[in-house]
Amino acid sequence: MNFSDKLARKIIEKQNPSVLGLDPKLEYIPDSIKRKAFDEYSCFEQAAAHSIAEFNKRLIDAVCDIIPAVKPQLAYYEMYGIHGIWVFNETVKYAKSKDLIVIADGKRNDIGSTSEAYASAYLGKTDINGENKEIFDADALTVNGYLGSDGIKPFVEACEKYGKGIFVLVKTSNLSSGELQDLTLDDGRKVYEAMADMVNEWGRTTKGQCGYSSVGAVVGATYPEQLKLLRKRMPESWILVPGYGAQGGKASDVAHAFDKDGLGAVINASRSLMCAYKSERWKNEYSAEEFDKAARAEAVRMKEEIGQFIFDRKENKG
Amino acid sequence: MNFSDKLARKIIEKQNPSVLGLDPKLEYIPDSIKRKAFDEYSCFEQAAAHSIAEFNKRLIDAVCDIIPAVKPQLAYYEMYGIHGIWVFNETVKYAKSKDLIVIADGKRNDIGSTSEAYASAYLGKTDINGENKEIFDADALTVNGYLGSDGIKPFVEACEKYGKGIFVLVKTSNLSSGELQDLTLDDGRKVYEAMADMVNEWGRTTKGQCGYSSVGAVVGATYPEQLKLLRKRMPESWILVPGYGAQGGKASDVAHAFDKDGLGAVINASRSLMCAYKSERWKNEYSAEEFDKAARAEAVRMKEEIGQFIFDRKENKG
Repeated sequence: MNFSDKLARKIIEKQNPSVLGLDPKLEYIPDSIKRKAFDEYSCFEQAAAHSIAEFNKRLIDAVCDIIPAVKPQLAYYEMYGIHGIWVFNETVKYAKSKDLIVIADGKRNDIGSTSEAYASAYLGKTDINGENKEIFDADALTVNGYLGSDGIKPFVEACEKYGKGIFVLVKTSNLSSGELQDLTLDDGRKVYEAMADMVNEWGRTTKGQCGYSSVGAVVGATYPEQLKLLRKRMPESWILVPGYGAQGGKASDVAHAFDKDGLGAVINASRSLMCAYKSERWKNEYSAEEFDKAARAEAVRMKEEIGQFIFDRKENKG
Repeated sequence: MNFSDKLARKIIEKQNPSVLGLDPKLEYIPDSIKRKAFDEYSCFEQAAAHSIAEFNKRLIDAVCDIIPAVKPQLAYYEMYGIHGIWVFNETVKYAKSKDLIVIADGKRNDIGSTSEAYASAYLGKTDINGENKEIFDADALTVNGYLGSDGIKPFVEACEKYGKGIFVLVKTSNLSSGELQDLTLDDGRKVYEAMADMVNEWGRTTKGQCGYSSVGAVVGATYPEQLKLLRKRMPESWILVPGYGAQGGKASDVAHAFDKDGLGAVINASRSLMCAYKSERWKNEYSAEEFDKAARAEAVRMKEEIGQFIFDRKENKG
């Protein structure tokens, strides 16, 4: 099945467009988990990886019936070397076993021949002596379009061939994203609008029955005005919206990313879910050891909060 | 020592600005090496990784006395999963043991907190329960500046703290690089020029005694006119020039990247060195089994060819 339709189905099934971002820092993980891992493994990187494996699994278990997708951020796995890559792969497999959509957040980019290698690693298969091997087998990958079409094409081909998706960085959530992305071109467009127009082009061949293509875009919740404009500018692209919660994006901000049916966007929350047990809202109710229960409570709250805004908009549009 | 000065010293020592790009595809590797690995390891990814390990080591052995640096391209390792990351790490360690500079080509990019994790993985150290662990420990990393300053700052901090370097994508070597990078801004600059101006800013704190900073730029050999202009526009940045050889860039093209002293640039060649034994020039002289000897012969030729152009320019300027 087309990635776009798969995503739409999961969101409708769970009535929730939230994504659990899995950017696990060791400091987020309760001592009991770390103690066990560091007692068992003398190699620090391995102990860290096993701590993360346990942390991620418990988070996934806690929310897999209410959240449609997870987004592991590769940097937080690569920083533990080979062991980190091991736990990244374990996380992908575990999330898939729980029927979750997995978006690998790697923001990969390169010239065509090299993008092909990245596509093999995360979305397609690697041909080894004539055997096609799935490597990480995520459902989607975030990519950076600075190199233009030929750097994106291999990813799109993997989308077509294997029913996968990509999300292209358009307007990112960070404070200095405007330094390049907000520059104005001589034709009046902003750089991020030029990128959005390319996203439209790249998505043409992967349109699903839900109306959206498998080539999505990343637009930060921290720029609600641009989010509103980009929703209109890329009518066939799913928008992956980071920046909700800990980065400051509110539900009223992310509401702009949805179409009138409440589709077209997924909202990522990483720290606000992983570290819900540390938050003002939940810290009196849950201990560090109950991080998974706190994450679920926050996930329920987030779902309701975002749902309310989508619902309100639908009512208003009547 | 500052990365920039380390690079200058190596280039002067070997009188050669060439970089061996290690983008190893299985099809490049002679059968004898693959047969041995596939006989020994039943896991295909592991066998592939061991084939690449042997291939890379023999290439490094063949050129380490004449070439200052290697550039393993991460995609070609990630495509074999954990085993691929293992051989990436082995390659980094082996190249460093031969006193070569290692540029990890990963084109990483993200918001600040995540870039920090990437910087830990490739340039700095990862703090695991208070112990600082080197993970991949390359000398430099290629990065993508689409997200602006706060996504680059953690990399620059790692450069300052650990004597490392980065190369920021400015004008890439691929055919469609112009789709975004060549767009004209309302102030008359091209997008790649705006990126070049940011590179100048980002390099201010890491200037070495050689006059160059540790924040370099990537500019493709396939765009000689832009290379000439960008050399002037980024007077303190090393330029990493891909696209020489198999991608079509000629020595006369890359000559533009150097200053009058023959410094300021490194020229990468991947396929034309790794697969020299398949080339018109060398295929009658070397068999596949002698890929390393062919790579050395081509490396010597490349050094002389580029040296001639740098020398000619110096004479003309003289």
